[in-house]
Formats: sequence, C-alpha cells, structure tokens
Amino acid sequence: MEHVVIVGGGFGGLQVAKRLAKAPVRITLVDRLNHHLFQPLLYQVAMAGLSPSDIAVPIRAALHRQRNVRVILDEAVGVDLARREVELRIAGRLRYDKLVLAAGAGTNYFGHPEWSKWAVGLKDLDEAVEIRRRVLLAFEAAEREPDPEKRKALLRFVVIGGGPTGVELAGSLAELARFALSRDFQTIHPEDAEVTLLEAGPRLLAPFDPKLSASAARQLEELGVTVRTGCLVRQIDDEGVRVAGPDGTETTLRGSTVIWAAGVRARPLSRTLGVELDRGGRVIVGSDGSIPGHPEVFVIGDMAHQVGPDGKPLPGLAPVAIQQGRNVAANILRDIEGKPRVPFRYVDKGMMATIGRSRAVAQTGRLRISGLLAWFAWIVVHLWFLVGFRNRLLVFYNWAYNYLTYKRGARLITGRRLEPGVPRQVVEPSEVERAARERLPPQQQRAPDPVHA
Amino acid sequence: MEHVVIVGGGFGGLQVAKRLAKAPVRITLVDRLNHHLFQPLLYQVAMAGLSPSDIAVPIRAALHRQRNVRVILDEAVGVDLARREVELRIAGRLRYDKLVLAAGAGTNYFGHPEWSKWAVGLKDLDEAVEIRRRVLLAFEAAEREPDPEKRKALLRFVVIGGGPTGVELAGSLAELARFALSRDFQTIHPEDAEVTLLEAGPRLLAPFDPKLSASAARQLEELGVTVRTGCLVRQIDDEGVRVAGPDGTETTLRGSTVIWAAGVRARPLSRTLGVELDRGGRVIVGSDGSIPGHPEVFVIGDMAHQVGPDGKPLPGLAPVAIQQGRNVAANILRDIEGKPRVPFRYVDKGMMATIGRSRAVAQTGRLRISGLLAWFAWIVVHLWFLVGFRNRLLVFYNWAYNYLTYKRGARLITGRRLEPGVPRQVVEPSEVERAARERLPPQQQRAPDPVHA
Repeated sequence: MEHVVIVGGGFGGLQVAKRLAKAPVRITLVDRLNHHLFQPLLYQVAMAGLSPSDIAVPIRAALHRQRNVRVILDEAVGVDLARREVELRIAGRLRYDKLVLAAGAGTNYFGHPEWSKWAVGLKDLDEAVEIRRRVLLAFEAAEREPDPEKRKALLRFVVIGGGPTGVELAGSLAELARFALSRDFQTIHPEDAEVTLLEAGPRLLAPFDPKLSASAARQLEELGVTVRTGCLVRQIDDEGVRVAGPDGTETTLRGSTVIWAAGVRARPLSRTLGVELDRGGRVIVGSDGSIPGHPEVFVIGDMAHQVGPDGKPLPGLAPVAIQQGRNVAANILRDIEGKPRVPFRYVDKGMMATIGRSRAVAQTGRLRISGLLAWFAWIVVHLWFLVGFRNRLLVFYNWAYNYLTYKRGARLITGRRLEPGVPRQVVEPSEVERAARERLPPQQQRAPDPVHA
Repeated sequence: MEHVVIVGGGFGGLQVAKRLAKAPVRITLVDRLNHHLFQPLLYQVAMAGLSPSDIAVPIRAALHRQRNVRVILDEAVGVDLARREVELRIAGRLRYDKLVLAAGAGTNYFGHPEWSKWAVGLKDLDEAVEIRRRVLLAFEAAEREPDPEKRKALLRFVVIGGGPTGVELAGSLAELARFALSRDFQTIHPEDAEVTLLEAGPRLLAPFDPKLSASAARQLEELGVTVRTGCLVRQIDDEGVRVAGPDGTETTLRGSTVIWAAGVRARPLSRTLGVELDRGGRVIVGSDGSIPGHPEVFVIGDMAHQVGPDGKPLPGLAPVAIQQGRNVAANILRDIEGKPRVPFRYVDKGMMATIGRSRAVAQTGRLRISGLLAWFAWIVVHLWFLVGFRNRLLVFYNWAYNYLTYKRGARLITGRRLEPGVPRQVVEPSEVERAARERLPPQQQRAPDPVHA
C-alpha cells in the first residue's frame, strides 16, 4: 500500500488526510505541534478575547476516527528527494511514496532576526500567549508607575504591518484598552493607551479594494488607533521603535510594546529541498501542486507558490490551503486509479478583515462592504469555518459573553516574571530553522535512525 | 482613612477585600499573579480536562466594582513589623495600618529542592500546564518509540503523596489514559500506562475516616492505579524514582513522569516576619487571627497556623481560608467601631476527594459516603463554590462534554520542546524564595523606593 507522508496539520495538511480517509493508502501525518490551530482567530488569543483551547484542537482528536492515519509529533528538518525520505528531528528518517509538504509559514523579519526579541510575531499559540502577557503586563506596570512620562511610555503599543493581522491586532488592542480594561484600574486610564499601526506601503490592506483600505483606516481611527502608512521601521531595541516617515524624517516611539505582523516566509524546510523558491521561500509548484520533476512531492498552503487564474501567486489564506489540499488528495487518488491529474482551480471566496467588535471590511466578487454589516458577515463566515471544531459553542459563548459584558475571561498572565517591556523570553529558533540558516544539507544534520523502513 | 494591605488574592485575601467593600478603609491588594485561582480544580488543568481560563479569573475583574480597592501586581518579599511596611519586589515599600497576609503555600520537597526538576508540584497554573505538557509528551514519545522497554518506561507515571491532590491526580491520570486517549494512538495502548501512587504514611487521605481511605484505594485500583503506602522516596533523578518500601527494600521506578503532591509549606514571606512559625513555615496566630503582640497584622489561609476547636491546627482548605477571611474582615470593622474582636469559630463543612469521573469519597459530620453518590456531592459542592466565578457555565459545559464524549478539549501541548522525560523547564524559585533561603532580612534586599508614603 502506498505510504503518503503529510508534513503539517494545518488547514491544508489536515484536509489532505481527511480526503484520503477511504483511500487505499497508509498515511503518516507529522507536526511539531500536537494541535491544529484555527489561525484566523489567533489574534483574539493575543488580545485576551479567547483562550488557547477555544481555537485549537489536538490533531489526534481531529483524526481519531480515521484508521489509515498515524500521527507523529516531531519536526521535519529536511527532505531527501532522491531517496524519497523525510528527516525527522527525533524519530529519524521516514520513507514516502507520496509527500505533501504543508508546514506553513513563520514570521519574516526581513533580515533582522534580532528584532524578534522585542517584536513578537503571531504564528502560534506560544507567541499569542507571549503577546497577551506583554500587553497585560504593560498595563500592570503602568498602574504601579509613579512617573507620568514612564507611565505614558508603558501605555504605548506599536503594531508593525498593515495587513489583515496587523489591522485586527491594532483594532482589538484599542478596544481591549478602551472597553475591557477601562474599569479595572485606579491610577491609570487604560483608554489613554496609544496604539500605532505602522505600514510600509501607501495604504492598509494592500490586497483589498482601495476604498476598503480607506474605510479600514477610518474605522481604526474611530477606535483611537494612529494609522501611519509609508513608514519604514529602521531599528527596534530597548529604546523603542525608530521609524522613517514618508518624507524620510526619523522618529522614535519610546518604550513600546511591539507586535510584528509585517510579513511571513515559508518554513525553512523548503530550503532543504534544493528546488526553485520564490523570495518568500515558497516552493514553486505546477498546476497539479507538485514540484517540477517530482510528481510524487506536493506543496500546499503558505509553503507553496502556485499561480492563480490572474497570473499572480495565490495568497496565504486558509481557503487556498483547504482547496489545494482537496486538489492534492484528488490527484493522489487519480494516480492510484491510473487517471490523469487535474489542475488546481482556485475558487475565490473573497477576503475580510475585522476591526474590533462591530467593525470590519469585506470584499467578494464585485461586492464591497464595511462597518457593522461586514462584521456580521465576518462572524457568520468564521462560525461556518469553525464547523467540525469542537470549540464552536465555546467560541460563540465567549463572544456573546464578551459582547454583553466587556469582560475578558482570557485575561490571564502566565509565566513567572512580572516586568513588561524588557524582553523576558526570547523565542528561540527551532533546530530546523537554525540548520536551514546554516545551510546544512539535511543528511549531515544527524545520523539516520530508520523508522517505517 | 485606615490603609488595609492584603497580600494574596486567593480564597482568603479576596474574601477580606470583598467583606470590606463598604468599610471606611482604603485597601491595597498585592498579588504576584494577576488571577484568582479556583485551586480545588487545578488538577483538572494538569490532567487536560479543563483549560486555565476555566478555573481562573483576573483579580481586577473580580474586584472591579469595588471602588476602595487598589490592585497591584507585585511580589511581597518582606514585612517590617516595626515600621509597618511591606516590601514589594518592584514597587518598593508600602505602609499599612492593618496587614492581612494571605499568600498561601508552595510545594514542600522536605529538604530536597533539587527534586523539583523532575517532580513538578501543583500550586499554580504554570505548574499545572507544565504537568499537562510532560504527561501528554510522554504519550507522544511512546508512540514514536520502537523499543518496547523504553516505551514501557515512557508510559510509567508516579504521583507522590496520597492526600486529596495526589488521589485526584492519580485517578484522573488513569482515566485520561484509559478513556480519553485510548482511541488516539495507533502504536501504543495508552491504557497500558502504569500509574503508581506513593504515600509515606500507612494509608491514603490521612485526615479522612479510615474506611474512606480504604475505599479510595479500592476505587483507584479499579481504575488501574497501583497504590503503595508506607513508601519513602529516597531519590529522584534522571533514572527515575527510588523508593523504600515498608520493609526497607529499595526499588526504582524507571523513566517515570513524576508529579509531586506530597506536601506544602507556607510561602517564605512568613520567615521574614521574625515571629514564631510551625514546622510547615506557618505563622502561629491567636484566636482573632492576628500575630501575638501585633494586633494590626493578621495571617489567614495556608500561611496561618490557627488552632481549631479540637486543639489541632486547622487544615489548608478553601473553606478555612474563606471563613478566616470573613472573621478578619469583621475584626477590622469592629476595631474601627471600637468594639472588641470576636474569636474565629471554624464551621467544618467536611472533606471530599474525587477519584476520576463517577468515583469519590466524602465525609461531613458523621456521614461517610463513597462512589457515585460522593461524586455527585462533589460536583454539587464545586459548582456551588464556583458561584461568583464567571466560568461556572464553561466548566459545566466542559464537564458535561467530557462526560459524554471522553474528548479532552484542553489536550494542548504548548512550549517548544518536544521530548518528555528529560526535564525541560526547571521551575525557578522566585526572588523572595531565594532571599528567604538565604535568610536576608527584607531591609537588606534592596534600597527602598517609597510608594504610598
């Protein structure tokens, strides 16, 4: 029986596994985390609106009815295309007949990995919880601080990157301060928090219609967010964030809590393939999702550079990954049945970004909506997507509760240190990231221990 | 207006603050954590049955309607009884007119602090999440492990301490393996997990009726737990746990995931007072809850050694702390009104311990119950206690859901490292714990910065 190895249990990888439930194949799904994450709501964990368990489900639980899947918690650190083997960090080598790479993307600091110390990215639950901790600790430190200047600096927050994640973070951060925390403190007024959203390009939400970009900026400003476009980040350090404005003048936002939402790049596993990548480290794949010259290896989701009907690469969105996963599963089945493969056709369902509670922008086809209506659309779509998630009811309950009471049940600070600002926990690069940086071929990384020979 | 400083936002401290809501006093509540914890359910977080946010509520949220309280996130590192000042680690000194010490207890390794590296205690959310991570990672590692001997060692769990916490942990660990995880793995049978509960004394649940102790042991054995009484732990290290049995012969439980529930001792803050303590580091207080010679300083909850009607010190239970909190608040009010203080009278509501789902033991007055009936009693009491918690519905929903489906929505592994067994994160002693170990008087710990002068 063919052995299909899937690397990554996100939207794409999980879709492939589920679609092959009745196929005559043996599947091994490898992920370095034990849970599938509903990433579109990750910013709500960072902003203390939802708890980690509301938006994550163990991969084993998601697949436990499917008997042809084996799940392994491990990290894929390299692929040997010639031998058809994936190198796992702990369990050694894994032979495949078909390989699906769906390991997603990490944060891209554009050549400044040292900034990650101050500016946390938002790609997994650990990072979301770390952001939540830093934001809540900043308010706590401000409450303790007698010096008004220092207090002001503690209440200064900078979100870098004006894409959907940055817009969602800035909007919900402003709301957290203005509504959820406003009654909790005696010395400070949390609503005095300064939230700045920095974007390098000329407008927010670049892939959206310019009218919606303008609407998003207006809606953010209604919430008190300072939106600055055309701004380049020059430096991030203990002082704060040094920014060059559109006219080139530099200013420093001092003592800020900084969140990085400026860019992603494919996981460094892609670099171990030795095939053509785009600038974001994504693997360039053909219309059937496979690597040119390697029809047995598919790449999907945020790791893949696949061209859409408009000739441009498809965006890094959950619907793209899910649809690609379906296409790859279909092609694996067609291979078994001896039928020719079918090319991927992306059905664009549109895009949306939420801006706090009751504000959003959305576009689909020729439709452009913003404000409350867009927000309702956003809720309906996200609840629909959560179908299959056991957490649907919990998320709904939490949302409804938050909406009515402005309380945040998820406002916990975990971790032992009490000071914000000073970086407490540097997010270490994983071993595969280090190895990829050092450009070691995967074979040299460790002696192979055979598994699944 | 009198300034009442409360150290600790647990059951006792929160009770004092709430009871003084309408009193003509200014209150400052200091806690090193931002949340009040429903500690009786903490073991369920460690065993992946509930999420941290289900059993914790931010102290600010719990008190935000009360205008005479200021909440400070900081750690009390010393008390200067002569100057009536509390030393805070970050914010400096805080003057009080009345002081209520309610900082609780930490884990007691009985002279072996180095064991904490392997045997995590269960006193806060960080420790509960760390236990959950180690337990779930052990099953994941067993699934990857080809060697049957190593696999067996990975599935060996040891709970040290046969009090209510140890009994609850061992029971729910056995159930996690037998029911919740049983369908999730392909290579291993999680129900083959070996759970051993070690107790130094002659029986489990020493404070309970001997019949209930025997019943608890029987109920645990029905779940597959090996109960060993009269066993002393000699050593814990990378090898495992070395145990001396009742006859003195030593055996080693190899490669185990170890949880420490063997004892508590009062937070080391008590040692900075320079007053009489008992062997557990608890402050010996009079019948009004105050320190002899210092009627302005009260100690309650797990930090206090107060004698009950039977002449024995009161146990470290939530009802004791809550009732003591009420008594102290009443006495603070009576001082203001110029009335004599009232002594504390403990109303014993009984004790209970749950053993997984549908098993428990309970005693109150002359009533002794065990099994399903005791379990129902346990649920009713805990839901009743959760009144006032915003999480009541969530907890109930989660319980009901777990009961019906055996799924565990909280089965997340967070943190970046993938291997169990080898200690990953040594829980660092806090600064106050270090200072107290070195027996520095609090004045020498740091230069004072005046706050609230």
